[in-house]
Amino acid sequence: MTDFRQQALDYHAFPQAGKIAVSLTKPAQTARDLALAYSPGVAEPVREIAADPESAYRYTAKGNLVAVITNGTAILGLGNLGPLASKPVMEGKALLFKRFANIDAIDIEVQHTDNDDFVRTVANIAGTFGGINLEDIKAPECFDIEARLIELCDIPVFHDDQHGTAIVTAAGLLNALALQGKELTAARIVCLGAGAAAVACMELLIACGARREQIFMLDRNGVIRSDRGELNAFKRRFVNDAGARNLDEAIEGADVFLGVSGANLLSEAQIQRMAPKPVIFACSNPDPEIRPELVRTVRPDAIMGTGRSDYPNQVNNVLCFPFLFRGALDVRARRIDLGMKLAAVEAIRALAHEPVPAEVLAAAGVTSLAFGPDYVLPKPMDPRLLLRVARAVACAAIESGVARLPLPAGYML
Amino acid sequence: MTDFRQQALDYHAFPQAGKIAVSLTKPAQTARDLALAYSPGVAEPVREIAADPESAYRYTAKGNLVAVITNGTAILGLGNLGPLASKPVMEGKALLFKRFANIDAIDIEVQHTDNDDFVRTVANIAGTFGGINLEDIKAPECFDIEARLIELCDIPVFHDDQHGTAIVTAAGLLNALALQGKELTAARIVCLGAGAAAVACMELLIACGARREQIFMLDRNGVIRSDRGELNAFKRRFVNDAGARNLDEAIEGADVFLGVSGANLLSEAQIQRMAPKPVIFACSNPDPEIRPELVRTVRPDAIMGTGRSDYPNQVNNVLCFPFLFRGALDVRARRIDLGMKLAAVEAIRALAHEPVPAEVLAAAGVTSLAFGPDYVLPKPMDPRLLLRVARAVACAAIESGVARLPLPAGYML
Repeated sequence: MTDFRQQALDYHAFPQAGKIAVSLTKPAQTARDLALAYSPGVAEPVREIAADPESAYRYTAKGNLVAVITNGTAILGLGNLGPLASKPVMEGKALLFKRFANIDAIDIEVQHTDNDDFVRTVANIAGTFGGINLEDIKAPECFDIEARLIELCDIPVFHDDQHGTAIVTAAGLLNALALQGKELTAARIVCLGAGAAAVACMELLIACGARREQIFMLDRNGVIRSDRGELNAFKRRFVNDAGARNLDEAIEGADVFLGVSGANLLSEAQIQRMAPKPVIFACSNPDPEIRPELVRTVRPDAIMGTGRSDYPNQVNNVLCFPFLFRGALDVRARRIDLGMKLAAVEAIRALAHEPVPAEVLAAAGVTSLAFGPDYVLPKPMDPRLLLRVARAVACAAIESGVARLPLPAGYML
Repeated sequence: MTDFRQQALDYHAFPQAGKIAVSLTKPAQTARDLALAYSPGVAEPVREIAADPESAYRYTAKGNLVAVITNGTAILGLGNLGPLASKPVMEGKALLFKRFANIDAIDIEVQHTDNDDFVRTVANIAGTFGGINLEDIKAPECFDIEARLIELCDIPVFHDDQHGTAIVTAAGLLNALALQGKELTAARIVCLGAGAAAVACMELLIACGARREQIFMLDRNGVIRSDRGELNAFKRRFVNDAGARNLDEAIEGADVFLGVSGANLLSEAQIQRMAPKPVIFACSNPDPEIRPELVRTVRPDAIMGTGRSDYPNQVNNVLCFPFLFRGALDVRARRIDLGMKLAAVEAIRALAHEPVPAEVLAAAGVTSLAFGPDYVLPKPMDPRLLLRVARAVACAAIESGVARLPLPAGYML
């Protein structure tokens, strides 16, 4: 086993198993403490909540509590390994929520027989939480699952693999296209992949101005066209009968390539066919659809992004989800709507235009970073993300009427 | 509002809402930390667990994680106020697990339509945890719910309102009867109450040697007899047609009165009818079935216990559940079986015979405590409970073959 792999296992196992634990936020030492925390004092907040359910946000941890919930059917790039195997990922997601936004996140792994079973289970426990982050649930089931849970729950429900990816991708693409002197509304877009991230990315790009007829989505069997019999309802939204049947044909003259598929699925010959000054986001993890070194050699006019931290322009969901939830929780938004997603896109996009503080340069291991082909997205450790994204999302929630609280004092400009 | 009631609300609301939060147990600062905690390093433990599910205990927090789960149908003495209103109690239970046994407990409030819905929901999320503590679920549904979850889950499932109460009650009763020079096998026992605690207490006392035909259980309609038409299957186990129809008749010559009902349901005249040297455990909370001051005056030969901390002999579930789970988790017991419950009874019972350390006296606000009529149960803050009860339970689990790990080093004598 490689040294890194062993370190990863050791990290998870020592000195104790796992990555998260529970801590107490109130005194619990004396008999007096316990008489307030439990019997008989605890009857008081119980009565208050029974009379006024909203007061649960006042007397319990609900308002800062997000559940990271999965059924283990699409774990990272490893596939359907089931709920138990997904637990390290879910704990890791909870760790990121806490680390980046001080959100108390716990992971719940759900076994299930079908969509109904999963939806019912999650809906039944949802009242425990202030928000739900769905994770690693395969397409196409994830679309229906998320939509139904949004309907059933009065707290935000958000499938990060769909919308977090879409938000960060959109922010990066808008910046990259601007650098290339292009408009999203005029861009020919090839999307290699037709799963959760792909569908959500394309929908969000359309909301940002992309033209549906300019989008070519491909799955393993080629371009999504109406003469493909077996398409699910979500792929069917992206049917494009303009003529291209495969990647070679679709990528001819394309301005944008978005890869949300697997390693080594985009060739040198194919990127040669792209329009001048293309944008290539090869986001397959851990290995991109095409190696950045090859792109740099063959298409030096391209702006490239990947999912990896060891290349410029990392499309990393952690730029979004902790801060998006922070903003949503802090104004007690009922849900995360399109306006809030677009506000997050804009906040992330705009931050890349600002000079980068020294500590971010240090953390990124570089001496300078400025908006340009090698910096179209903020770095994950940029401490300005928290307030910028959370505030944008909170303000958008208030504007669309889904917020139940006003902007907190700490958010004021 | 009284000062105490306001303090209880303030305790829950300030300086932050609720009583528990999530903490990180591994480094999460640098990019390297995050590459181990999340992508790509997290793929390693995922693969390990996919290949060997038991290794989830090595690489995740599962082994120390207990879910406190309720449907809110029997909250304290306040009744069916629903899941959200129960959240302060469930957080409080989680606080006690952490405070007394360093168990990471999180609360889950479950809305449900019927038993099937509740059982399915909980069974679907059970794999997340190392154990489940069911709480505040009304009888008679709780019996079926618990039994089915024990069947469906390979982790301990334990309804504390049933068995925790039973374990502590049994330990205290055995000590009290011994002091009164009586045998449990010969005792006439009156149980006022026929719900979760009552049924579990009586079953456990029978396992300790009590005679079913000497037990008189009463609900609101009097003694449980076969001419009562409407009895559920659990009450029916305690049908006693010896003749007594009501409390006056049942308590005639009774050696033991156990109250698990409500305030002021036992009168002076009734306790006068008890046998010489009776044992009276009036455990209704917050107000007992009869006031200890009255008992002391009218029956000075009685040994009395209540659920309150401001009288001697508090029957408090916290003497048991944190330590029982600690022992069960530490040997990875598949379930909490009768042997483990009896081992807990014995450990708690025996501890009351030992001299009491100074810090326990100080915490209890007394200058001396010794085994006797005013000290038949250890005090909740007795630090010896942790090792004594956990060890007894762990050893019992190993003995009955339900343990999946050997006795940890820290448990060795």
